[in-house]
Amino acid sequence: MKIGLIQMDVVDDKARNLEVAEKFIRLAATQEAEVVLLPEMFNTPYGNEFFIPYAEEGEGPTLSLLKRLAKELGILLVGGSIPEADQGKIYNTSYIVDDKGEVLDKHRKAHLFDIDVKGGITFFESKTLTPGDKVTILETSIGRIGVAICYDIRFPEVFRKMALEGVSYVFIPAAFNHITGPAHWEILTRARALDNQMYLFIASPATSSVLDYKAYGHTLGVDPWGRILGELGNREGLLVLDVDPSEVRRIKEELPTMKHRRPELYD
Amino acid sequence: MKIGLIQMDVVDDKARNLEVAEKFIRLAATQEAEVVLLPEMFNTPYGNEFFIPYAEEGEGPTLSLLKRLAKELGILLVGGSIPEADQGKIYNTSYIVDDKGEVLDKHRKAHLFDIDVKGGITFFESKTLTPGDKVTILETSIGRIGVAICYDIRFPEVFRKMALEGVSYVFIPAAFNHITGPAHWEILTRARALDNQMYLFIASPATSSVLDYKAYGHTLGVDPWGRILGELGNREGLLVLDVDPSEVRRIKEELPTMKHRRPELYD
Repeated sequence: MKIGLIQMDVVDDKARNLEVAEKFIRLAATQEAEVVLLPEMFNTPYGNEFFIPYAEEGEGPTLSLLKRLAKELGILLVGGSIPEADQGKIYNTSYIVDDKGEVLDKHRKAHLFDIDVKGGITFFESKTLTPGDKVTILETSIGRIGVAICYDIRFPEVFRKMALEGVSYVFIPAAFNHITGPAHWEILTRARALDNQMYLFIASPATSSVLDYKAYGHTLGVDPWGRILGELGNREGLLVLDVDPSEVRRIKEELPTMKHRRPELYD
Repeated sequence: MKIGLIQMDVVDDKARNLEVAEKFIRLAATQEAEVVLLPEMFNTPYGNEFFIPYAEEGEGPTLSLLKRLAKELGILLVGGSIPEADQGKIYNTSYIVDDKGEVLDKHRKAHLFDIDVKGGITFFESKTLTPGDKVTILETSIGRIGVAICYDIRFPEVFRKMALEGVSYVFIPAAFNHITGPAHWEILTRARALDNQMYLFIASPATSSVLDYKAYGHTLGVDPWGRILGELGNREGLLVLDVDPSEVRRIKEELPTMKHRRPELYD
Protein backbone atom coordinates (compact mmCIF):
# COMPACT_ATOMS: atom_id res chain seq x y z
CA MET A 1 0.00 0.00 0.00
CA LYS A 2 1.32 3.44 -0.90
CA ILE A 3 0.75 6.65 1.07
CA GLY A 4 1.46 10.05 -0.47
CA LEU A 5 2.53 12.96 1.75
CA ILE A 6 2.50 16.45 0.30
CA GLN A 7 4.89 19.19 1.44
CA MET A 8 3.75 22.18 -0.58
CA ASP A 9 4.78 25.82 -0.60
CA VAL A 10 1.93 27.87 0.80
CA VAL A 11 1.56 31.51 -0.31
CA ASP A 12 -0.76 34.45 0.38
CA ASP A 13 -3.05 33.54 -2.54
CA LYS A 14 -5.77 30.93 -2.01
CA ALA A 15 -6.31 30.17 -5.70
CA ARG A 16 -2.61 29.53 -6.14
CA ASN A 17 -2.52 27.25 -3.06
CA LEU A 18 -5.39 25.19 -4.45
CA GLU A 19 -3.64 24.87 -7.82
CA VAL A 20 -0.48 23.61 -6.16
CA ALA A 21 -2.41 21.21 -3.92
CA GLU A 22 -4.20 19.82 -6.99
CA LYS A 23 -0.94 19.37 -8.87
CA PHE A 24 0.57 17.38 -5.99
CA ILE A 25 -2.55 15.29 -5.35
CA ARG A 26 -2.60 14.28 -9.01
CA LEU A 27 1.12 13.49 -8.89
CA ALA A 28 0.63 11.28 -5.81
CA ALA A 29 -2.18 9.39 -7.58
CA THR A 30 0.05 8.91 -10.64
CA GLN A 31 2.56 7.30 -8.29
CA GLU A 32 -0.19 4.93 -7.09
CA ALA A 33 -0.82 6.44 -3.66
CA GLU A 34 -4.10 5.09 -2.25
CA VAL A 35 -4.10 7.67 0.51
CA VAL A 36 -2.90 11.27 0.24
CA LEU A 37 -2.17 13.67 3.09
CA LEU A 38 -1.94 17.46 2.77
CA PRO A 39 -0.31 19.80 5.32
CA GLU A 40 -1.90 21.97 8.00
CA MET A 41 -3.44 25.23 6.77
CA PHE A 42 -2.52 24.43 3.17
CA ASN A 43 -4.89 26.99 1.63
CA THR A 44 -3.77 29.93 3.79
CA PRO A 45 -0.61 31.37 5.29
CA TYR A 46 -0.26 30.30 8.91
CA GLY A 47 -1.10 33.39 10.98
CA ASN A 48 -3.96 34.80 13.00
CA GLU A 49 -4.39 37.68 10.51
CA PHE A 50 -5.10 35.19 7.69
CA PHE A 51 -7.40 32.64 9.32
CA ILE A 52 -10.56 34.78 9.20
CA PRO A 53 -10.26 36.07 5.60
CA TYR A 54 -9.27 32.61 4.31
CA ALA A 55 -11.95 30.71 6.23
CA GLU A 56 -14.68 28.77 4.41
CA GLU A 57 -18.12 27.87 5.73
CA GLY A 58 -19.66 24.57 4.61
CA GLU A 59 -18.57 23.53 1.11
CA GLY A 60 -16.34 26.34 -0.13
CA PRO A 61 -13.83 26.14 -2.97
CA THR A 62 -11.29 24.13 -0.96
CA LEU A 63 -13.59 21.34 0.22
CA SER A 64 -15.20 21.26 -3.20
CA LEU A 65 -11.80 20.66 -4.81
CA LEU A 66 -10.91 17.92 -2.32
CA LYS A 67 -14.18 16.07 -2.97
CA ARG A 68 -13.83 16.34 -6.72
CA LEU A 69 -10.22 15.09 -6.76
CA ALA A 70 -10.76 12.23 -4.29
CA LYS A 71 -13.62 10.92 -6.41
CA GLU A 72 -11.93 11.40 -9.76
CA LEU A 73 -8.66 9.79 -8.63
CA GLY A 74 -10.24 7.12 -6.43
CA ILE A 75 -8.18 7.99 -3.34
CA LEU A 76 -8.70 8.49 0.37
CA LEU A 77 -7.80 12.14 0.93
CA VAL A 78 -6.84 13.49 4.35
CA GLY A 79 -7.22 17.08 3.33
CA GLY A 80 -4.62 18.77 5.49
CA SER A 81 -6.42 21.52 7.33
CA ILE A 82 -8.08 24.83 6.53
CA PRO A 83 -9.77 27.56 8.57
CA GLU A 84 -13.41 26.50 8.85
CA ALA A 85 -16.07 29.06 9.74
CA ASP A 86 -19.09 27.79 11.63
CA GLN A 87 -21.66 29.92 13.47
CA GLY A 88 -19.27 32.81 13.96
CA LYS A 89 -16.37 30.68 15.12
CA ILE A 90 -13.23 29.61 13.26
CA TYR A 91 -11.76 26.10 13.59
CA ASN A 92 -8.56 24.53 12.27
CA THR A 93 -10.25 21.67 10.42
CA SER A 94 -9.20 18.60 8.48
CA TYR A 95 -11.76 17.05 6.12
CA ILE A 96 -11.35 13.35 5.38
CA VAL A 97 -12.82 12.48 1.97
CA ASP A 98 -13.30 8.97 0.56
CA ASP A 99 -12.94 7.71 -3.01
CA LYS A 100 -16.59 8.50 -3.72
CA GLY A 101 -16.00 12.15 -2.87
CA GLU A 102 -17.94 11.86 0.40
CA VAL A 103 -16.73 13.55 3.59
CA LEU A 104 -16.28 10.68 6.06
CA ASP A 105 -15.54 12.92 9.03
CA LYS A 106 -13.71 16.08 9.98
CA HIS A 107 -11.19 16.72 12.72
CA ARG A 108 -11.05 20.09 14.39
CA LYS A 109 -7.69 20.71 16.08
CA ALA A 110 -8.42 19.97 19.72
CA HIS A 111 -5.36 21.51 21.36
CA LEU A 112 -4.58 25.07 20.30
CA PHE A 113 -1.00 26.18 19.88
CA ASP A 114 -0.47 28.86 22.53
CA ILE A 115 3.21 29.03 23.36
CA ASP A 116 5.78 31.64 24.31
CA VAL A 117 9.34 30.32 24.10
CA LYS A 118 11.65 33.20 25.15
CA GLY A 119 13.93 34.23 22.29
CA GLY A 120 12.24 31.57 20.16
CA ILE A 121 8.63 31.35 19.05
CA THR A 122 5.49 33.06 20.34
CA PHE A 123 2.09 32.19 18.89
CA PHE A 124 -1.45 32.23 20.24
CA GLU A 125 -3.89 30.38 17.99
CA SER A 126 -6.60 30.93 20.56
CA LYS A 127 -6.73 34.61 19.51
CA THR A 128 -8.77 33.57 16.48
CA LEU A 129 -9.45 29.85 16.67
CA THR A 130 -11.84 27.68 18.67
CA PRO A 131 -10.75 24.12 19.56
CA GLY A 132 -12.58 20.98 18.47
CA ASP A 133 -14.13 18.68 21.00
CA LYS A 134 -13.18 15.16 20.02
CA VAL A 135 -10.43 12.67 19.25
CA THR A 136 -11.08 11.72 15.61
CA ILE A 137 -11.21 8.00 14.79
CA LEU A 138 -12.97 6.70 11.69
CA GLU A 139 -13.45 3.69 9.44
CA THR A 140 -11.99 3.95 5.95
CA SER A 141 -11.08 1.76 2.97
CA ILE A 142 -7.69 1.04 4.60
CA GLY A 143 -9.14 0.27 8.04
CA ARG A 144 -9.55 2.35 11.14
CA ILE A 145 -7.53 5.58 11.07
CA GLY A 146 -6.96 8.53 13.38
CA VAL A 147 -6.51 12.17 12.42
CA ALA A 148 -4.88 14.80 14.63
CA ILE A 149 -3.50 18.25 13.82
CA CYS A 150 -0.04 19.56 14.71
CA TYR A 151 -0.02 20.55 18.42
CA ASP A 152 -2.41 17.64 19.13
CA ILE A 153 0.68 15.43 18.72
CA ARG A 154 2.07 16.69 22.02
CA PHE A 155 -0.67 14.87 23.93
CA PRO A 156 0.12 11.16 24.28
CA GLU A 157 -3.41 10.50 25.54
CA VAL A 158 -4.83 11.22 22.07
CA PHE A 159 -2.75 8.48 20.47
CA ARG A 160 -3.25 6.01 23.31
CA LYS A 161 -6.98 6.39 22.89
CA MET A 162 -6.63 5.77 19.16
CA ALA A 163 -4.52 2.65 19.76
CA LEU A 164 -6.93 1.26 22.34
CA GLU A 165 -9.71 1.69 19.79
CA GLY A 166 -7.81 -0.26 17.13
CA VAL A 167 -6.30 2.48 14.97
CA SER A 168 -3.33 1.36 12.83
CA TYR A 169 -2.67 4.54 10.83
CA VAL A 170 -2.63 8.14 12.02
CA PHE A 171 -2.51 11.14 9.70
CA ILE A 172 -1.31 14.50 10.99
CA PRO A 173 -1.37 17.74 9.05
CA ALA A 174 1.12 19.95 10.89
CA ALA A 175 3.25 23.07 10.72
CA PHE A 176 5.99 23.08 13.34
CA ASN A 177 8.50 25.95 13.26
CA HIS A 178 12.28 26.23 13.31
CA ILE A 179 12.46 26.23 17.12
CA THR A 180 10.21 23.31 18.02
CA GLY A 181 10.80 21.44 14.76
CA PRO A 182 14.48 20.55 15.17
CA ALA A 183 13.91 19.90 18.88
CA HIS A 184 10.75 17.80 18.83
CA TRP A 185 9.27 16.93 15.40
CA GLU A 186 10.94 13.56 14.84
CA ILE A 187 10.94 12.44 18.43
CA LEU A 188 7.24 13.09 18.95
CA THR A 189 6.31 11.33 15.71
CA ARG A 190 8.55 8.35 16.39
CA ALA A 191 7.50 8.00 20.03
CA ARG A 192 3.76 8.07 19.26
CA ALA A 193 4.24 5.41 16.57
CA LEU A 194 6.44 3.22 18.76
CA ASP A 195 4.39 3.52 21.96
CA ASN A 196 1.16 2.73 20.18
CA GLN A 197 2.50 0.37 17.49
CA MET A 198 0.91 2.34 14.66
CA TYR A 199 2.00 4.00 11.43
CA LEU A 200 2.23 7.79 11.72
CA PHE A 201 2.28 10.19 8.77
CA ILE A 202 2.88 13.88 9.34
CA ALA A 203 2.88 16.49 6.56
CA SER A 204 4.05 20.10 6.79
CA PRO A 205 4.13 23.06 4.42
CA ALA A 206 7.57 23.69 2.94
CA THR A 207 9.65 26.39 4.61
CA SER A 208 8.46 29.63 3.04
CA SER A 209 10.92 32.15 1.66
CA VAL A 210 8.33 34.93 1.83
CA LEU A 211 5.82 34.36 4.65
CA ASP A 212 6.53 35.39 8.25
CA TYR A 213 5.81 31.96 9.73
CA LYS A 214 8.49 29.56 8.58
CA ALA A 215 7.11 26.04 8.74
CA TYR A 216 9.66 23.36 9.55
CA GLY A 217 8.95 21.04 6.62
CA HIS A 218 10.42 17.57 7.25
CA THR A 219 7.26 15.71 6.20
CA LEU A 220 7.73 12.26 7.63
CA GLY A 221 6.41 8.70 7.87
CA VAL A 222 7.22 6.34 10.76
CA ASP A 223 6.45 2.62 11.18
CA PRO A 224 5.12 0.85 14.32
CA TRP A 225 8.69 0.02 15.46
CA GLY A 226 9.50 3.75 15.47
CA ARG A 227 11.61 3.55 12.30
CA ILE A 228 11.61 6.47 9.86
CA LEU A 229 10.24 5.29 6.50
CA GLY A 230 11.09 8.50 4.69
CA GLU A 231 11.50 12.20 5.39
CA LEU A 232 11.69 15.33 3.26
CA GLY A 233 13.87 18.39 3.88
CA ASN A 234 12.58 21.98 3.96
CA ARG A 235 11.57 22.36 0.30
CA GLU A 236 8.41 21.59 -1.59
CA GLY A 237 8.06 17.93 -2.50
CA LEU A 238 6.06 14.72 -2.49
CA LEU A 239 6.94 11.69 -0.38
CA VAL A 240 5.36 8.37 -1.44
CA LEU A 241 5.89 5.62 1.13
CA ASP A 242 5.34 1.88 0.91
CA VAL A 243 3.48 0.51 3.89
CA ASP A 244 3.05 -3.13 4.95
CA PRO A 245 -0.30 -3.54 6.72
CA SER A 246 0.82 -6.85 8.32
CA GLU A 247 3.62 -5.06 10.19
CA VAL A 248 1.28 -3.76 12.89
CA ARG A 249 0.13 -7.26 13.83
CA ARG A 250 3.65 -8.72 13.69
CA ILE A 251 5.10 -6.08 16.02
CA LYS A 252 2.18 -6.40 18.44
CA GLU A 253 2.88 -10.14 18.67
CA GLU A 254 6.62 -9.75 19.23
CA LEU A 255 6.43 -6.88 21.71
CA PRO A 256 2.93 -7.05 23.20
CA THR A 257 3.02 -3.81 25.17
CA MET A 258 -0.67 -3.16 24.67
CA LYS A 259 -1.45 -6.47 26.41
CA HIS A 260 1.07 -5.70 29.15
CA ARG A 261 -0.65 -2.46 30.18
CA ARG A 262 -1.70 -2.32 33.84
CA PRO A 263 -4.62 0.10 33.64
CA GLU A 264 -5.52 -0.58 37.28
CA LEU A 265 -2.27 1.21 38.24
CA TYR A 266 -2.85 4.43 36.34
CA ASP A 267 -6.22 4.83 34.67
CA MET B 1 22.64 19.99 41.62
CA LYS B 2 24.66 16.98 40.50
CA ILE B 3 23.26 13.53 39.71
CA GLY B 4 25.55 10.50 39.44
CA LEU B 5 24.61 7.62 37.14
CA ILE B 6 26.52 4.37 37.46
CA GLN B 7 27.09 2.01 34.53
CA MET B 8 28.90 -0.91 36.15
CA ASP B 9 30.06 -4.26 34.85
CA VAL B 10 27.92 -6.95 36.46
CA VAL B 11 29.40 -10.45 36.90
CA ASP B 12 28.29 -13.82 38.29
CA ASP B 13 29.64 -13.03 41.77
CA LYS B 14 27.51 -11.02 44.18
CA ALA B 15 30.35 -9.98 46.48
CA ARG B 16 32.27 -8.62 43.51
CA ASN B 17 29.19 -6.73 42.25
CA LEU B 18 28.76 -5.10 45.66
CA GLU B 19 32.43 -4.08 45.74
CA VAL B 20 32.15 -2.45 42.32
CA ALA B 21 28.89 -0.71 43.23
CA GLU B 22 30.51 0.66 46.39
CA LYS B 23 33.53 1.90 44.45
CA PHE B 24 31.32 3.81 42.00
CA ILE B 25 28.98 5.21 44.68
CA ARG B 26 32.00 6.59 46.54
CA LEU B 27 33.41 8.02 43.31
CA ALA B 28 30.09 9.76 42.55
CA ALA B 29 30.02 11.27 46.04
CA THR B 30 33.61 12.49 45.58
CA GLN B 31 32.38 14.26 42.46
CA GLU B 32 29.66 15.94 44.56
CA ALA B 33 26.67 13.98 43.33
CA GLU B 34 23.72 14.53 45.70
CA VAL B 35 21.76 11.71 44.12
CA VAL B 36 23.20 8.44 42.80
CA LEU B 37 21.46 5.91 40.54
CA LEU B 38 22.54 2.29 40.08
CA PRO B 39 21.48 0.02 37.17
CA GLU B 40 18.82 -2.69 37.09
CA MET B 41 19.81 -6.03 38.65
CA PHE B 42 23.22 -4.69 39.63
CA ASN B 43 23.98 -7.43 42.15
CA THR B 44 23.14 -10.33 39.82
CA PRO B 45 23.50 -11.34 36.19
CA TYR B 46 20.30 -10.63 34.31
CA GLY B 47 18.67 -14.04 33.72
CA ASN B 48 15.90 -16.17 35.15
CA GLU B 49 18.42 -18.78 36.37
CA PHE B 50 20.10 -16.16 38.57
CA PHE B 51 17.18 -14.28 40.12
CA ILE B 52 16.27 -16.92 42.71
CA PRO B 53 19.79 -17.73 43.99
CA TYR B 54 20.72 -14.02 44.10
CA ALA B 55 17.50 -12.88 45.76
CA GLU B 56 17.51 -11.28 49.21
CA GLU B 57 14.65 -11.15 51.71
CA GLY B 58 14.34 -8.10 53.95
CA GLU B 59 17.69 -6.50 54.75
CA GLY B 60 20.29 -8.70 53.07
CA PRO B 61 23.86 -7.73 52.21
CA THR B 62 22.86 -5.52 49.28
CA LEU B 63 20.29 -3.36 51.04
CA SER B 64 22.55 -3.19 54.08
CA LEU B 65 25.37 -1.80 51.91
CA LEU B 66 23.07 0.76 50.27
CA LYS B 67 21.86 2.03 53.66
CA ARG B 68 25.35 2.26 55.08
CA LEU B 69 26.76 4.15 52.08
CA ALA B 70 23.82 6.56 51.71
CA LYS B 71 24.16 7.56 55.36
CA GLU B 72 27.96 7.76 55.39
CA LEU B 73 28.10 9.82 52.16
CA GLY B 74 24.97 11.88 52.81
CA ILE B 75 23.36 11.08 49.46
CA LEU B 76 19.98 10.08 48.12
CA LEU B 77 20.56 6.63 46.65
CA VAL B 78 18.25 5.10 44.06
CA GLY B 79 19.62 1.63 44.48
CA GLY B 80 19.19 0.22 40.99
CA SER B 81 17.31 -3.00 41.41
CA ILE B 82 17.87 -6.46 42.86
CA PRO B 83 15.83 -9.66 43.08
CA GLU B 84 13.76 -9.31 46.27
CA ALA B 85 12.28 -12.42 47.90
CA ASP B 86 9.04 -11.94 49.79
CA GLN B 87 6.68 -14.71 50.94
CA GLY B 88 7.84 -17.15 48.31
CA LYS B 89 7.74 -14.65 45.45
CA ILE B 90 10.57 -12.82 43.70
CA TYR B 91 10.29 -9.16 42.64
CA ASN B 92 12.57 -6.90 40.61
CA THR B 93 12.90 -4.21 43.29
CA SER B 94 14.52 -0.79 43.61
CA TYR B 95 15.16 0.52 47.13
CA ILE B 96 15.30 4.29 47.53
CA VAL B 97 17.46 5.25 50.52
CA ASP B 98 17.85 8.74 52.00
CA ASP B 99 20.90 10.44 53.50
CA LYS B 100 20.04 9.09 56.94
CA GLY B 101 20.22 5.54 55.61
CA GLU B 102 16.44 5.08 55.81
CA VAL B 103 14.49 3.30 53.07
CA LEU B 104 12.01 5.91 51.83
CA ASP B 105 10.15 3.54 49.54
CA LYS B 106 10.73 0.67 47.16
CA HIS B 107 9.57 0.20 43.58
CA ARG B 108 8.80 -3.26 42.30
CA LYS B 109 8.93 -3.43 38.49
CA ALA B 110 5.28 -3.25 37.51
CA HIS B 111 5.50 -4.37 33.87
CA LEU B 112 7.42 -7.59 33.31
CA PHE B 113 9.60 -7.98 30.24
CA ASP B 114 8.01 -10.79 28.24
CA ILE B 115 8.95 -10.39 24.61
CA ASP B 116 9.75 -12.59 21.63
CA VAL B 117 11.28 -10.62 18.75
CA LYS B 118 11.93 -13.11 15.94
CA GLY B 119 15.64 -13.40 15.18
CA GLY B 120 16.27 -10.86 17.92
CA ILE B 121 15.58 -11.18 21.63
CA THR B 122 13.36 -13.57 23.60
CA PHE B 123 12.95 -13.18 27.34
CA PHE B 124 10.20 -14.01 29.80
CA GLU B 125 10.74 -12.40 33.20
CA SER B 126 7.39 -13.74 34.33
CA LYS B 127 8.92 -17.24 34.52
CA THR B 128 10.47 -16.24 37.83
CA LEU B 129 9.31 -12.74 38.75
CA THR B 130 6.10 -11.28 40.14
CA PRO B 131 5.14 -7.72 39.16
CA GLY B 132 4.70 -4.86 41.62
CA ASP B 133 1.37 -3.17 42.05
CA LYS B 134 2.00 0.57 42.07
CA VAL B 135 3.45 3.57 40.29
CA THR B 136 6.16 4.79 42.67
CA ILE B 137 6.15 8.48 43.58
CA LEU B 138 7.83 9.78 46.72
CA GLU B 139 9.04 12.89 48.53
CA THR B 140 12.79 13.29 48.87
CA SER B 141 15.39 15.92 49.71
CA ILE B 142 15.36 17.06 46.05
CA GLY B 143 11.56 17.18 45.79
CA ARG B 144 9.05 14.71 44.46
CA ILE B 145 10.60 11.93 42.36
CA GLY B 146 9.38 8.90 40.46
CA VAL B 147 11.07 5.53 40.11
CA ALA B 148 10.36 3.02 37.35
CA ILE B 149 12.32 0.00 36.15
CA CYS B 150 13.33 -0.75 32.55
CA TYR B 151 10.27 -2.12 30.68
CA ASP B 152 8.04 0.20 32.77
CA ILE B 153 9.37 2.98 30.49
CA ARG B 154 7.34 1.62 27.58
CA PHE B 155 4.11 2.69 29.29
CA PRO B 156 3.48 6.41 28.85
CA GLU B 157 0.68 6.27 31.43
CA VAL B 158 3.21 5.70 34.23
CA PHE B 159 5.05 8.94 33.46
CA ARG B 160 1.88 10.94 32.83
CA LYS B 161 0.65 9.93 36.25
CA MET B 162 3.96 11.01 37.77
CA ALA B 163 3.80 14.38 35.98
CA LEU B 164 0.21 15.00 37.03
CA GLU B 165 1.28 14.37 40.61
CA GLY B 166 4.10 16.91 40.41
CA VAL B 167 7.17 14.75 39.80
CA SER B 168 10.15 16.64 38.33
CA TYR B 169 12.79 13.88 38.34
CA VAL B 170 12.43 10.24 37.35
CA PHE B 171 15.07 7.60 38.01
CA ILE B 172 15.10 4.38 35.97
CA PRO B 173 17.36 1.42 36.59
CA ALA B 174 17.26 -0.48 33.30
CA ALA B 175 18.94 -3.14 31.16
CA PHE B 176 17.87 -2.92 27.53
CA ASN B 177 19.59 -5.25 25.06
CA HIS B 178 21.29 -4.84 21.68
CA ILE B 179 18.03 -5.24 19.73
CA THR B 180 15.69 -2.90 21.61
CA GLY B 181 18.48 -0.61 22.83
CA PRO B 182 19.59 0.90 19.52
CA ALA B 183 15.96 1.01 18.34
CA HIS B 184 14.22 2.50 21.38
CA TRP B 185 16.40 3.46 24.36
CA GLU B 186 17.02 7.11 23.53
CA ILE B 187 13.68 7.80 21.97
CA LEU B 188 11.68 6.45 24.90
CA THR B 189 13.77 8.35 27.43
CA ARG B 190 13.63 11.61 25.48
CA ALA B 191 9.91 11.34 24.72
CA ARG B 192 8.92 10.67 28.35
CA ALA B 193 11.01 13.65 29.49
CA LEU B 194 9.68 15.95 26.78
CA ASP B 195 6.02 14.92 27.04
CA ASN B 196 5.98 15.30 30.80
CA GLN B 197 8.51 18.14 31.15
CA MET B 198 10.62 16.25 33.65
CA TYR B 199 14.24 15.19 34.02
CA LEU B 200 14.79 11.50 33.28
CA PHE B 201 17.84 9.49 34.35
CA ILE B 202 18.29 5.93 33.15
CA ALA B 203 21.20 3.70 34.17
CA SER B 204 22.18 0.36 32.64
CA PRO B 205 24.85 -2.24 33.37
CA ALA B 206 27.81 -2.07 30.98
CA THR B 207 27.76 -4.52 28.06
CA SER B 208 29.21 -7.72 29.49
CA SER B 209 31.99 -9.58 27.71
CA VAL B 210 31.19 -12.79 29.60
CA LEU B 211 27.50 -13.00 30.53
CA ASP B 212 24.85 -14.29 28.10
CA TYR B 213 22.60 -11.24 28.42
CA LYS B 214 24.35 -8.27 26.86
CA ALA B 215 22.94 -5.10 28.38
CA TYR B 216 22.88 -2.10 26.07
CA GLY B 217 24.70 0.36 28.32
CA HIS B 218 24.17 3.97 27.11
CA THR B 219 23.34 5.30 30.59
CA LEU B 220 21.64 8.61 29.88
CA GLY B 221 20.19 11.80 31.32
CA VAL B 222 17.60 13.94 29.52
CA ASP B 223 16.21 17.37 30.40
CA PRO B 224 12.54 18.52 30.29
CA TRP B 225 12.98 19.86 26.72
CA GLY B 226 14.03 16.35 25.59
CA ARG B 227 17.71 17.27 25.25
CA ILE B 228 20.38 14.71 26.08
CA LEU B 229 22.49 16.00 28.99
CA GLY B 230 25.04 13.21 28.74
CA GLU B 231 25.29 9.60 27.64
CA LEU B 232 27.81 6.81 28.14
CA GLY B 233 28.80 4.15 25.60
CA ASN B 234 28.82 0.40 26.29
CA ARG B 235 31.64 0.25 28.85
CA GLU B 236 31.76 0.65 32.61
CA GLY B 237 31.71 4.25 33.74
CA LEU B 238 30.22 7.02 35.84
CA LEU B 239 28.21 9.91 34.41
CA VAL B 240 27.82 12.98 36.66
CA LEU B 241 25.29 15.45 35.30
CA ASP B 242 24.58 19.05 36.30
CA VAL B 243 20.89 19.70 36.67
CA ASP B 244 19.11 23.05 36.95
CA PRO B 245 15.99 22.66 39.10
CA SER B 246 14.48 25.91 37.71
CA GLU B 247 14.42 24.45 34.19
CA VAL B 248 11.23 22.46 34.82
CA ARG B 249 9.26 25.57 35.77
CA ARG B 250 10.70 27.64 32.92
CA ILE B 251 9.78 25.08 30.27
CA LYS B 252 6.30 24.59 31.72
CA GLU B 253 5.73 28.35 31.41
CA GLU B 254 6.99 28.59 27.83
CA LEU B 255 5.25 25.48 26.52
CA PRO B 256 2.36 24.84 28.92
CA THR B 257 1.27 21.46 27.55
CA MET B 258 0.19 20.21 30.95
CA LYS B 259 -2.30 23.10 31.19
CA HIS B 260 -3.43 22.51 27.60
CA ARG B 261 -4.50 18.92 28.26
CA ARG B 262 -8.16 18.20 27.46
CA PRO B 263 -8.85 15.31 29.83
CA GLU B 264 -12.55 15.42 28.99
CA LEU B 265 -11.62 14.15 25.50
CA TYR B 266 -9.62 11.12 26.54
CA ASP B 267 -9.59 10.29 30.24
